[in-house]
Amino acid sequence: MTASYLVGLIGSGIQTSLTPALHEGEADALGLRYLYRLIDIDRLGKTATDAAALVRAARDVGYDALNITHPCKQTVFDALDELSPDAELLGAVNTVLFRDGRTIGLNTDHSGFASGLRDGLRAPVVDRVVLLGSGGAGSAIAYALLNAGTTRLSVYDPVIERADAVCRALGPAFPGVRVVAITPDELAAAIAAADGLVNATPIGMTGHPGMPISATLLHSRLWVADAVYRPLRTELIETADALGCAVLDGGRMAVGQAADAFRLITGAEPDPVRMRAHFLQLTGALSAASR
Amino acid sequence: MTASYLVGLIGSGIQTSLTPALHEGEADALGLRYLYRLIDIDRLGKTATDAAALVRAARDVGYDALNITHPCKQTVFDALDELSPDAELLGAVNTVLFRDGRTIGLNTDHSGFASGLRDGLRAPVVDRVVLLGSGGAGSAIAYALLNAGTTRLSVYDPVIERADAVCRALGPAFPGVRVVAITPDELAAAIAAADGLVNATPIGMTGHPGMPISATLLHSRLWVADAVYRPLRTELIETADALGCAVLDGGRMAVGQAADAFRLITGAEPDPVRMRAHFLQLTGALSAASR
Repeated sequence: MTASYLVGLIGSGIQTSLTPALHEGEADALGLRYLYRLIDIDRLGKTATDAAALVRAARDVGYDALNITHPCKQTVFDALDELSPDAELLGAVNTVLFRDGRTIGLNTDHSGFASGLRDGLRAPVVDRVVLLGSGGAGSAIAYALLNAGTTRLSVYDPVIERADAVCRALGPAFPGVRVVAITPDELAAAIAAADGLVNATPIGMTGHPGMPISATLLHSRLWVADAVYRPLRTELIETADALGCAVLDGGRMAVGQAADAFRLITGAEPDPVRMRAHFLQLTGALSAASR
Repeated sequence: MTASYLVGLIGSGIQTSLTPALHEGEADALGLRYLYRLIDIDRLGKTATDAAALVRAARDVGYDALNITHPCKQTVFDALDELSPDAELLGAVNTVLFRDGRTIGLNTDHSGFASGLRDGLRAPVVDRVVLLGSGGAGSAIAYALLNAGTTRLSVYDPVIERADAVCRALGPAFPGVRVVAITPDELAAAIAAADGLVNATPIGMTGHPGMPISATLLHSRLWVADAVYRPLRTELIETADALGCAVLDGGRMAVGQAADAFRLITGAEPDPVRMRAHFLQLTGALSAASR
């Protein structure tokens, strides 16, 4: 028997996830036998507190790895034997490997954003960045930016305590770097002085129309990234693009985390260009994004 | 996403099972995405009593179906919502389907033997048959023979109570048919009068050399079948073949049960000739068996 891979996604609201198709498509291109299954806690009548038991069940019946998404990225911790330092710092796991009898928690959300940033914007200046939103995606993006060399990260969240918590969690790991939660009053000045702006709030996604900030705060010296990828061209991305900003759609992070998980699971090198093309095809956005 | 199939085998001592390769090979030939995993209770440090929990775990994490082998064919019953009439009569399940939220137990051991008999011997006379061994394989073969039209089935087992139990369990389902447990003293006369002889004891397999009966009891009017398939050419099969008997090696039943399970799982029609060729290739017996 040649090597084969059995991978699943544990989470809620995942029936339309593109991750299974992304993984299986890349495996097919590389000639690997690969099956990616949805383990949907809604359909199972389970809750986030059952996630650790599902991880153990998957381990027992022969899974090689799992991806973990909302609302289970914290609740799987009980099933882990090891935690990577980045997942520990972020307090969130999005990838689990079963290896040599051990269950290992990892995080490819931050590395996925980082590789998306590299692939999509080609070494942008990241000195000063404003991050909107400090939930799970926001934390991962904050960590990615700090790793990429951001020296002044301003984190805005309508609930400032959440932004504060992220800054306090990540700041000490990056001595000499300024990581601060900002108030609504400080937002305009922070963006005016920034090199980049990232949206990690749900605003702009299907069902949450609009922009996370006023369009008047944008300026053409900014690069603008969005974690939202449904639609791929959010109002923020469209507006920034029209202004002449370099833009990075949310598909980059989605493909980046999938590519990084795929590499960890298989040891094989995924082709990010092919995965991006597959992603655009799956979202029906091929023509729109190639403008 | 196109349809895909996730299937596993629950049992003990299954690391060298050919079933995963048989299923995956046939799926590949039919262009189906198919993954077949071993769920080895030995490796998991579990016992037969854990089989029902493993079935539930497999259901929760997205399996489509399972095969079940020794020593779990009875112990999975607790996890089942439905049982096919044949599996109920045999008191043994070798295939579990997860379908429309229900867990259904089936048995393809008997149908696999039956199709092996058809494919390998082309409508042999089955009126009078002597069956050696009355364990799980023996019971399934007894049922297959009775379904195929055997009117006098003599079941021999060193533990006559076991043979008796099989006869009492199956006999009532076939009114007018003679299904009897026979003693060592009756064996010679039964074989002398028989059309066919089937070995369902472990004797002849690697580690259990020899023949289940004395070679002097064989005669050229018999067809001779063996459930043992390691080696494919057992001493019984070799001796019977040399005598001029029509012979059916144990690979036929192994392939037959796999083909029938595959059809139940996928709804697609497997090619028994291709599966037989694959089986012979996997066992390295292609040249020996094509004589």
